[in-house]
Amino acid sequence: MTNISVIIVAGGSGTRMGAAVPKQFLPLEEEKTILEATLRRFLAALPDSEIVVVLPAAETERWREICRQRNISETHRLCSGGATRFESVRNGIAALGPCDYIAVHDGVRPLVTERLIHTCVATAERYGTAVPAIRPADSFRRVDATTGKSRPVDRETLRAVQTPQVFRADLLRRAYKADYRPEFTDDASVVEANGEQVTLCEGERTNIKITSPADLLIARILRHAGDGKETDSL
Amino acid sequence: MTNISVIIVAGGSGTRMGAAVPKQFLPLEEEKTILEATLRRFLAALPDSEIVVVLPAAETERWREICRQRNISETHRLCSGGATRFESVRNGIAALGPCDYIAVHDGVRPLVTERLIHTCVATAERYGTAVPAIRPADSFRRVDATTGKSRPVDRETLRAVQTPQVFRADLLRRAYKADYRPEFTDDASVVEANGEQVTLCEGERTNIKITSPADLLIARILRHAGDGKETDSL
Repeated sequence: MTNISVIIVAGGSGTRMGAAVPKQFLPLEEEKTILEATLRRFLAALPDSEIVVVLPAAETERWREICRQRNISETHRLCSGGATRFESVRNGIAALGPCDYIAVHDGVRPLVTERLIHTCVATAERYGTAVPAIRPADSFRRVDATTGKSRPVDRETLRAVQTPQVFRADLLRRAYKADYRPEFTDDASVVEANGEQVTLCEGERTNIKITSPADLLIARILRHAGDGKETDSL
Repeated sequence: MTNISVIIVAGGSGTRMGAAVPKQFLPLEEEKTILEATLRRFLAALPDSEIVVVLPAAETERWREICRQRNISETHRLCSGGATRFESVRNGIAALGPCDYIAVHDGVRPLVTERLIHTCVATAERYGTAVPAIRPADSFRRVDATTGKSRPVDRETLRAVQTPQVFRADLLRRAYKADYRPEFTDDASVVEANGEQVTLCEGERTNIKITSPADLLIARILRHAGDGKETDSL
């Protein structure tokens, strides 16, 4: 297996959750925070990989204390985030040692499975890039910002994008030398703006991003779904 | 309040769930099936409205037996579905008595709130149509069916469409005189193909469509969220 480094991006302050702490520090189960759950999935899937966790500078001490209590201080290194996700990932890249591939994952997607991590890594080893994506279940419309009118969107070819997104390290490092642009919503869009194609692979419906209290409830009930066993048995 | 009739569409056979019965008959909580839960939300929100439930012809007897056991036989009428959602809704419209507005709702969206039903009705009373929609949390890409390549999609103006969709009865009846077309994925698209504008209103993140075992788990945990109380208090 090639040499893969992991960036877990938890740079947000999560004010939408209405809680006193950023969402990555909310408990997913008992004592385990969302961010710890995410971290542990990567420790299990890629036990020999370097992991850098990107946090808001103001939250570093809180996380260090959690790590001491939970005995995970030695498993990863920390780095400070920036004003945007782009800046946070760039700081994460700068903090990494030499490696062949880089996986970038949202700290608030704690239900990622070992299987999906391995699928993404294998896809990137073959094609240079890997972006997990799923077919959305809903219908979509596009709103015209000026008129407020909307029109239907063809659902058949639409895909909802997830993480981990895995890239050949040289591609990602080169792409992140760009200046920030508002259309950089994920790493794929940064790599693409640098002239590269990205390759999609099949994501997982349970690999949700926790952005609201409802998402957190959902994640708590799905957390034992693991490799889909519990959901498949319904 | 104007005279509103309701069509609850449960015409599918739900084979993707991997269960022996169609998904609308799976239990949401204890003895209560998904379809009963959906029906009860409309009985509570619009107690004086006529309700027609559209079911596959082969499932009518199963549902009648459930209704006897659960004491809900007298609350609604039944009608047989067709090969497509379009045909099922058309059969539902034909089964309705005279009314001013028609609400069409997916039988497998049992978490719709009274608040959302009232919002949609009020919007349709004002503008003639009402389509609830929410901002998606994910990033999206568009796949080229021929090349397999993908490109990013602007997320800011994208909306995920839900039900109940409410229409002035004459608009909906006229639109459903059309011949079926594959792009008819919901009632809004049928009304629009007939030259009408549709009006969006704010949907609810918890108003999910149950299409997979994971969705059912999610719905079970969210079922008491009601008017958002439980999720808001997190």
